[in-house]
Amino acid sequence: MTSTPNGMTQTESNKVTISVDAMGGDQGPSAVVEGCALSAAKNDEIAFILHGDEAVLRAQVARFPVLAGIVDIHHSPDVVQMDDKPSQVMRRGRETSMWSALTALRENHAQAAVSCGNTGALMAVSMLRLRKLDGVHRPAIACLWPSRGKTGFNTMLDVGADVRADEESLLQYALMGAAYYRNAFDAPRPRVGLLNVGTEEHKGRAEIKEAARLIADAAEIGRYDFVGFVEGNDLPSDHVDVIVTDGFTGNVALKTAEGTARLIGDTLRDELTVNLPSKLAALFASAPLGRLRKRMDPRRMNGGVFLGLNGTVVKSHGSADATGVSAAIKLAFTLARSGFQDRMAERLASAADAQQENVLNKKDRNAHDGEADDDKQIGQS
Amino acid sequence: MTSTPNGMTQTESNKVTISVDAMGGDQGPSAVVEGCALSAAKNDEIAFILHGDEAVLRAQVARFPVLAGIVDIHHSPDVVQMDDKPSQVMRRGRETSMWSALTALRENHAQAAVSCGNTGALMAVSMLRLRKLDGVHRPAIACLWPSRGKTGFNTMLDVGADVRADEESLLQYALMGAAYYRNAFDAPRPRVGLLNVGTEEHKGRAEIKEAARLIADAAEIGRYDFVGFVEGNDLPSDHVDVIVTDGFTGNVALKTAEGTARLIGDTLRDELTVNLPSKLAALFASAPLGRLRKRMDPRRMNGGVFLGLNGTVVKSHGSADATGVSAAIKLAFTLARSGFQDRMAERLASAADAQQENVLNKKDRNAHDGEADDDKQIGQS
Repeated sequence: MTSTPNGMTQTESNKVTISVDAMGGDQGPSAVVEGCALSAAKNDEIAFILHGDEAVLRAQVARFPVLAGIVDIHHSPDVVQMDDKPSQVMRRGRETSMWSALTALRENHAQAAVSCGNTGALMAVSMLRLRKLDGVHRPAIACLWPSRGKTGFNTMLDVGADVRADEESLLQYALMGAAYYRNAFDAPRPRVGLLNVGTEEHKGRAEIKEAARLIADAAEIGRYDFVGFVEGNDLPSDHVDVIVTDGFTGNVALKTAEGTARLIGDTLRDELTVNLPSKLAALFASAPLGRLRKRMDPRRMNGGVFLGLNGTVVKSHGSADATGVSAAIKLAFTLARSGFQDRMAERLASAADAQQENVLNKKDRNAHDGEADDDKQIGQS
Repeated sequence: MTSTPNGMTQTESNKVTISVDAMGGDQGPSAVVEGCALSAAKNDEIAFILHGDEAVLRAQVARFPVLAGIVDIHHSPDVVQMDDKPSQVMRRGRETSMWSALTALRENHAQAAVSCGNTGALMAVSMLRLRKLDGVHRPAIACLWPSRGKTGFNTMLDVGADVRADEESLLQYALMGAAYYRNAFDAPRPRVGLLNVGTEEHKGRAEIKEAARLIADAAEIGRYDFVGFVEGNDLPSDHVDVIVTDGFTGNVALKTAEGTARLIGDTLRDELTVNLPSKLAALFASAPLGRLRKRMDPRRMNGGVFLGLNGTVVKSHGSADATGVSAAIKLAFTLARSGFQDRMAERLASAADAQQENVLNKKDRNAHDGEADDDKQIGQS
């Protein structure tokens, strides 16, 4: 471990330390380090371990006095590229900044990790270094979504860790998503909805109907309210906080929303620059249009949280600038401080126990039914 | 058949006749009949058969002189409600305006049908009355999507006829979607893309990778260019005209886009009315904002086309007003006049033959390989 000039490490303070892969991301280490500085300026309980090329990072950190004394730099010579396949990185990625960032988390030098790198590789290395929580079938990625609700956000999962999910995985997503939302947004009892093509009970695929039953049954263990099926147009609704779906559908929905917002934004820009009167109108309307831009700013929504691992990993968007990186760091900090990992693990275990009990009870009932049948047969014979 | 006051029926003219379920829809027959009038005002080759309560419709039609002489009214006493289950309507729906509208199409009194009614019921009754095209596994619903491309639209299918689709169904969607797009937008060689969670070949579910192979192989028969995988953010792209996906994913994507657009629209409205300066700004910017509203107007995109049936059925949005109904009617008219049904049926049959041939060739090759193995064994023995 390389110490900062004043020799301070995160163990000497009460700060929450975030392990940051500083080399991933399209905008390079300058945007990542600036994002750390933005966060540090607003939060004096935060510290960082930055992973990447030491000389580059040292120069970047020196630009921001606010980072003095709260940053450790871990040198790693290699970087995961955006088009590297997960399997390649798992085999040959030990010298990368991504690997190093997750190792620091695994070894408890930090309480959460943040990376702007390639999602597939980050999930693969996270699974390898941190391992799945006991009983978790597959980890999930939870994204933030603009919402009309009180917090301004809701969350959807899975948005791309796995392209399929059976009913038990969907139940685990509900439990993990509720734990995440509760701790990220201080919402004691999140409302969970299951994404479907209609809100009527008879609609949708068989595994989704079964998942609805399991999620409803586990509401007390998971400390959430199940609001039933929701549809694509309910995603920004104030009636739901956590939207559960498989990674294929979730990924398509997330990208569809991004594409739609961009289309509308571009069309608005076209219309406001098409001629002189329009440009004047844009000038007059700059205040309300600026507020619209701020409220819909995708950078506020930056940060995909990996759930179901032994450790909190936040994936920042590859193209995130300093503001986006800072939002992802804030999310990692909030989750790390809340200690939600342990409570989420407990709830997953309780739900598994309850399901096990249900299965045993059912078998028991079936056995009794069998006996009754036997009695009947005896009576008949 | 009830004749109009001047005794003219559609068979006496060269007009294209649209069979309209005038009672479905949230806004009632007045919006539907007004939609017919809007279309008639712009198109002197159109005629209508309206299905519903005769007294009500006669009074509505009388409001619009442009409809004089081009409307027949078929009386039907009953209406399909928005919450009626498809199975109920199939059993007890013979007296409904929806049933009547499809019967007129089946009996060649009209060249296309339009309804604002309940989607599930409309699909069920359409399948019952019109039957599927030979060889079609399941019909699909194709929606219009705002696009950056030349026509301003692209199409996605399936958006809700079926919650699953195997690779052969996805191939049929590609063939049907390309035929639809070619004829609706006069685009000789549509570009077809397959919706996935990434554009790399190794990504996604197994049936999607197999579908990509089938769709690529059938490009010549279907007269389209296959552009490979597309993602959610590519839906409005100018690189693709026809987006193929299963009905679950397509339905979620469509509704997610609608919900996102509404959220942005509402937020913009909030910001432009929050205080006096904002209201003034809105006034100054009313021209460009009006153009934005027009370009993003969901009513322009109204009209889900049912593909894979013996007849052209267009589902108009339940809440469509006269402008929306008129857009759906225009779509039905364009498709009816193009005669694309027959050519689509031919292409589906050719693709099925080609696939059959492939399978036989493969078997043949395998048989030869078997012989070669035998030879080798003989040589070795």
